[in-house]
Amino acid sequence: MRRWPIAISVLFFYFHSTAQNKTISGFNEKEAQDQFLAEQKFDSYLKAEDVGQMIMEMSARPHHVGSPGDKAVADYIYNKFKSWGFDVQVETFYVLFPTPKYRLLEMTSPTAFKATLMEKVLPEDGTSGQTSEQLPPYNCFSPDGDVTGELVYVNYGLPEDYEYLSRLGIDVKGKIVITKYGRSWRGIKPKVAQEHGAIGCIIYSDPRDDGYYAGDVYPKGAFKNEYGVQRGSVMDMPVYPGDPLTPGIGATKDARRLDRKDATNLLKIPVLPISYHDAEPLLRALAGPVAPEDWRGALPFTYHIGPGKTTVHLKLEFNWDIKPVNDIIARIPGSEEPDEWVIRGNHHDAWVNGAGDPLSGQAAMLEEAHAISELVKTGWKPRRSLVYCAWDGEEPALLGSTEWVEQHASELQQKAVVYINSDGNGRGFLGAEGSHALEPMLNEVARDVSDPETGMSVLDRRLAVNVVSAGKNETKQKDLLSKKTISIGALGSGSDFSPFIQHIGVPSINLGYGGEDPGGEYHSIYDSWDDYRRFKDPSFQYGVTLAKTAGRTALRLANAGSLPFDFRSLYKAINGYVSEVIGMADQMRESTLLENQLIREKFYQHTTDTALKLLPPAPKEEVPFLNFSSLQNAMTAMQKATEHLSSVLAGAKPDQAKQDEVNRSLYQAEQKLLTENGLPRRGWYRHAIYAPGFYTGYGVKTLPGIREAIEQRKWKEAQQEIEEDAGVIRNFSIYLDGIAAKLP
Amino acid sequence: MRRWPIAISVLFFYFHSTAQNKTISGFNEKEAQDQFLAEQKFDSYLKAEDVGQMIMEMSARPHHVGSPGDKAVADYIYNKFKSWGFDVQVETFYVLFPTPKYRLLEMTSPTAFKATLMEKVLPEDGTSGQTSEQLPPYNCFSPDGDVTGELVYVNYGLPEDYEYLSRLGIDVKGKIVITKYGRSWRGIKPKVAQEHGAIGCIIYSDPRDDGYYAGDVYPKGAFKNEYGVQRGSVMDMPVYPGDPLTPGIGATKDARRLDRKDATNLLKIPVLPISYHDAEPLLRALAGPVAPEDWRGALPFTYHIGPGKTTVHLKLEFNWDIKPVNDIIARIPGSEEPDEWVIRGNHHDAWVNGAGDPLSGQAAMLEEAHAISELVKTGWKPRRSLVYCAWDGEEPALLGSTEWVEQHASELQQKAVVYINSDGNGRGFLGAEGSHALEPMLNEVARDVSDPETGMSVLDRRLAVNVVSAGKNETKQKDLLSKKTISIGALGSGSDFSPFIQHIGVPSINLGYGGEDPGGEYHSIYDSWDDYRRFKDPSFQYGVTLAKTAGRTALRLANAGSLPFDFRSLYKAINGYVSEVIGMADQMRESTLLENQLIREKFYQHTTDTALKLLPPAPKEEVPFLNFSSLQNAMTAMQKATEHLSSVLAGAKPDQAKQDEVNRSLYQAEQKLLTENGLPRRGWYRHAIYAPGFYTGYGVKTLPGIREAIEQRKWKEAQQEIEEDAGVIRNFSIYLDGIAAKLP
Repeated sequence: MRRWPIAISVLFFYFHSTAQNKTISGFNEKEAQDQFLAEQKFDSYLKAEDVGQMIMEMSARPHHVGSPGDKAVADYIYNKFKSWGFDVQVETFYVLFPTPKYRLLEMTSPTAFKATLMEKVLPEDGTSGQTSEQLPPYNCFSPDGDVTGELVYVNYGLPEDYEYLSRLGIDVKGKIVITKYGRSWRGIKPKVAQEHGAIGCIIYSDPRDDGYYAGDVYPKGAFKNEYGVQRGSVMDMPVYPGDPLTPGIGATKDARRLDRKDATNLLKIPVLPISYHDAEPLLRALAGPVAPEDWRGALPFTYHIGPGKTTVHLKLEFNWDIKPVNDIIARIPGSEEPDEWVIRGNHHDAWVNGAGDPLSGQAAMLEEAHAISELVKTGWKPRRSLVYCAWDGEEPALLGSTEWVEQHASELQQKAVVYINSDGNGRGFLGAEGSHALEPMLNEVARDVSDPETGMSVLDRRLAVNVVSAGKNETKQKDLLSKKTISIGALGSGSDFSPFIQHIGVPSINLGYGGEDPGGEYHSIYDSWDDYRRFKDPSFQYGVTLAKTAGRTALRLANAGSLPFDFRSLYKAINGYVSEVIGMADQMRESTLLENQLIREKFYQHTTDTALKLLPPAPKEEVPFLNFSSLQNAMTAMQKATEHLSSVLAGAKPDQAKQDEVNRSLYQAEQKLLTENGLPRRGWYRHAIYAPGFYTGYGVKTLPGIREAIEQRKWKEAQQEIEEDAGVIRNFSIYLDGIAAKLP
Repeated sequence: MRRWPIAISVLFFYFHSTAQNKTISGFNEKEAQDQFLAEQKFDSYLKAEDVGQMIMEMSARPHHVGSPGDKAVADYIYNKFKSWGFDVQVETFYVLFPTPKYRLLEMTSPTAFKATLMEKVLPEDGTSGQTSEQLPPYNCFSPDGDVTGELVYVNYGLPEDYEYLSRLGIDVKGKIVITKYGRSWRGIKPKVAQEHGAIGCIIYSDPRDDGYYAGDVYPKGAFKNEYGVQRGSVMDMPVYPGDPLTPGIGATKDARRLDRKDATNLLKIPVLPISYHDAEPLLRALAGPVAPEDWRGALPFTYHIGPGKTTVHLKLEFNWDIKPVNDIIARIPGSEEPDEWVIRGNHHDAWVNGAGDPLSGQAAMLEEAHAISELVKTGWKPRRSLVYCAWDGEEPALLGSTEWVEQHASELQQKAVVYINSDGNGRGFLGAEGSHALEPMLNEVARDVSDPETGMSVLDRRLAVNVVSAGKNETKQKDLLSKKTISIGALGSGSDFSPFIQHIGVPSINLGYGGEDPGGEYHSIYDSWDDYRRFKDPSFQYGVTLAKTAGRTALRLANAGSLPFDFRSLYKAINGYVSEVIGMADQMRESTLLENQLIREKFYQHTTDTALKLLPPAPKEEVPFLNFSSLQNAMTAMQKATEHLSSVLAGAKPDQAKQDEVNRSLYQAEQKLLTENGLPRRGWYRHAIYAPGFYTGYGVKTLPGIREAIEQRKWKEAQQEIEEDAGVIRNFSIYLDGIAAKLP
């Protein structure tokens, strides 16, 4: 008891000194005090009940691309912005958007079974019965098709799953594959199936992944009941996203369009998603080898791979219509730099009602915009322009954002300071990804936002969950315990930041909360208001927290005297990626040698149960030593350039004109990381550092040219990409030196 | 193609030189040549069809302790040995063996359900319909009981599972637990439940572990169908095995017996095993928290923990009869050292028909004995006596072997050179465990036995599967690739070697094949001839291979001029265990500090989803530094003593009398590893190095006194045990020095 007074005084001193020391990068002391006051006001305007109300209202009807509900939500958002005093425009593009005309999946042998292809209306879910307005379960951009073939179970449908099939002597050529959602973006599954000669692809949700194995199913709990189906696009977006008929240009009314057959990002084989209710009879009927342990799901029978007497018939037809997508673009002009745009976006279209995806993020963004409009009413003005964007058509292919970016590419490359994205949001922990030069400023934002459940900062809570998630790995836990800042992730794909960063090099950030909101509603009719308010963020406080986080990010970037890009962080991130790809090549070399030895010396034949009839793996080509020196030397130059620039920026006191020029150079720097011709075989992706993986889809590949060439064992290409990226990084460093040279 | 001739000549040279260099430890060159010839003959007498025939004949009826079938199998074995010219005796003991009189398990709330407690008769299984002779599913040595209570699901029922329950605020006091087979010996589950205050225990087999999740179920495949139940003992054998009424002494007709209530290895709460058919309604009815991921099984619903409105009623009554167990002891007297016994054993009793467990091992042992009898007919004689033992009553509590060992303890400590055990056997890889001084000789045996599937030696195949099983751990794979010998495992419990090694210090070995014979028949009516011949060892070749392996081991130990005990291998093993316990204490110290820090700094409160209501773990007492120096110094002395003895033995040419004296000292050495008072709280276990774990049951704990004290955080006891074991090892080294001193 005697210790209390001491403990309290220590605590007091700690908080006191923290508050004293709090700064904001890019703001001097006076500016920072003003900013903190503005943010305090901004926070006070954010109301959880408003977030809930907007989610409820916008999720009242299905609102997929081209539907009456879609138009209604666009109008709702337009009117909101208008009422808050924003300068609002609707920008409409005209895009290919196929919808189902005919869907049939039946088993014709060994027994007859016709899949229901229906999700069940639930009395506990108020919008689940809006069947006349719902898009039935389908995979958007599947081609039309009418195929019959033997069924083969291919696990998650990843390249390594087919390697295992080949060890079993099973070829999917001419067959229909059944695969399950998870472990890759869905579009990868039919793409890889097609590469292996399959003629059709069925994707189901195994109850092990997000059904009863994971937790109680809807409506009792949040997980997928037997009827839930995940809709979603299977366009080959790792080649290019957006309207498949207008790659690289805005899909305006009279844009020049490709013939559909010439679009290089469209699949050739029909694909259909189904529920585990529909998948069960098909999987149960399969003969052939027993699936290996990591292929098994939670359905109550032994999983077999097939093929054999199990034959299915899949027939799909679609309406291949051109539909409008309506982007709502709302602005508050900058008081001093109207031509410098801080862009904030979240899509508004959904697969069905979309309370979680995207409306939880959309409502948070709207509440953020609303609070800023209240701030404006008090006389506050942003130094730079704020541009709030509610995108249409994200679900099929990032249509609204991609077409807008393609349409305005050169203006954006001049004016866009940053693009700040969000999407579905829920209870839990801060997730932050993006351009690494913004990592320090994002840490400051996270430091200044409180978590609604614990009251601690969202930064500290993220740091804490990183420690706890490391589980029993004590070395890692200790390492994480010493960390005071978070490392932000790199951007892959899966939401509207992709065209900004990967196509035109606009610095981008993606923000959201989650981790305490798991469930199986994703892209089903059960992603509804009733689901959201019960399981995702019942108090809507994480909507407010997202608004605080993204709002602070936008406001600070809009108001900073000196833009807080710190390229030392970018150097650190890239240097880590360089170490990774070098390590990966070394590791592959070692493991190839070892594996080839085991194959050559018949270790597999000698130890595989003869009853299994499992062939040894095929030997692989040995991994040559690659020459990384140009890249390593470029990194040395980059380290020097970033440190030099930082020290020059810290010491400089430029006049306003010079400062403006420097700011422009800073926010345009990321464009120097674009390559001339983009990535091999997918030139739309031009960023040398970040891209969605060709075989992961959403998952990022950093230094994608080099990394994927190594992964795909294309050694010559890997060497070319090393040189390419080394050149990019050299030029980037020269550019940074140029900025430093502008300052006294 | 031009390389062939070179490759062939290299191969030829390799085999040639290997054959030339082949030696047998303990045999001079001439003796080794004779031994190889005898073994060649021995092999030629082994017939796979004989093994199959004997399995079929002995598994024709259920033959549990005290049953007519048990007597019939004992007679069958007696007659076999007799016909082969062995000197055969039947030794009978009288032991407590409870069998079911009344079994009831019903759910009384929320709905009524009465468990069937029956396994299904299958037309595909010829003996499954022998219901009148079968023991129904039960856990032997469960007490009588009639309890009603709320049901709680406790995962595998391990101590750490209860730690998790306490984080959920769930107490099993006054409740009935349902747990599943696996991850510990079954008897541990009710013991730990009882320690936590539960009033009853139900054990079921989850289909994830050995049912449909693992593979096709019987009779289509080998895995457990929904009706299969694993019978088995729940006597607290980690306290002492054998007849609970006669601890430490033979259960002869008029042995002095304890009152049943005074037996310290009998449980207080009723226990019953059930099928997943019977478990499903109970588990499905549970409310309460969702079970965490690693608690979930393969039944098709969300696993909940309870408790709540799910109430069950368990009523069990048993016939607490004294039954005879008949050990068959068959001898071939040694020509030169009749009072040195090489003992070979396998039990003959089963829970039901027991084709796999134990008859596959029993038949292999009989075939081995038969082949030796053929060898004897050719004039060959063993130098030492061979004693073949077919044990009764292994299943309930190692009854036949334990009572025999207790009855003949002092004679065995004089005469027993080694005990070589086997039990159920199947297709796959050599498994070898035992006294580490015999590790080198076991490697030579494995070198000289061919695997029937691949033709390579069973040593090389074991080495190969060790490499492949290391999977993607390349460092481990490379390390294993360089190994030319196998490290044998340490003996825990689970078969008849336990009394020999752990109670009286007779060097012991356990041998068997497996790994390509998985299934769910264990201790059910489906462990039958039909199951065995289809799934376990259809050609019975692995029965022959076991006979070759155990037979060679017996023959070499029976004939060696100088007994091949190499205590350097024992030193190496013990020294590894010493490093492990030191490392474990250090690791626990580190992890306790880290975990306590995370608890103190509220990492768990800050990161646990508030919806889960999961309390942080309780902080643990910090781990003091223990003084291991006496043990480390003892190991230094042991290293010197073992190296000195080996070099003296290698150089010595003693006369026969001296050699005999040295041999006796060598095989009696392991007795010096016994402690005066045995392990804390379980004095029957006297070996300082090997014991079954108090909380694992079958699984071995090496340096058990020290290791378990540390695991159970009894620091004072840990220090005492360190001193105790250091003393044992010091004395052992002095004893070895004494042997060396006898030689010139």
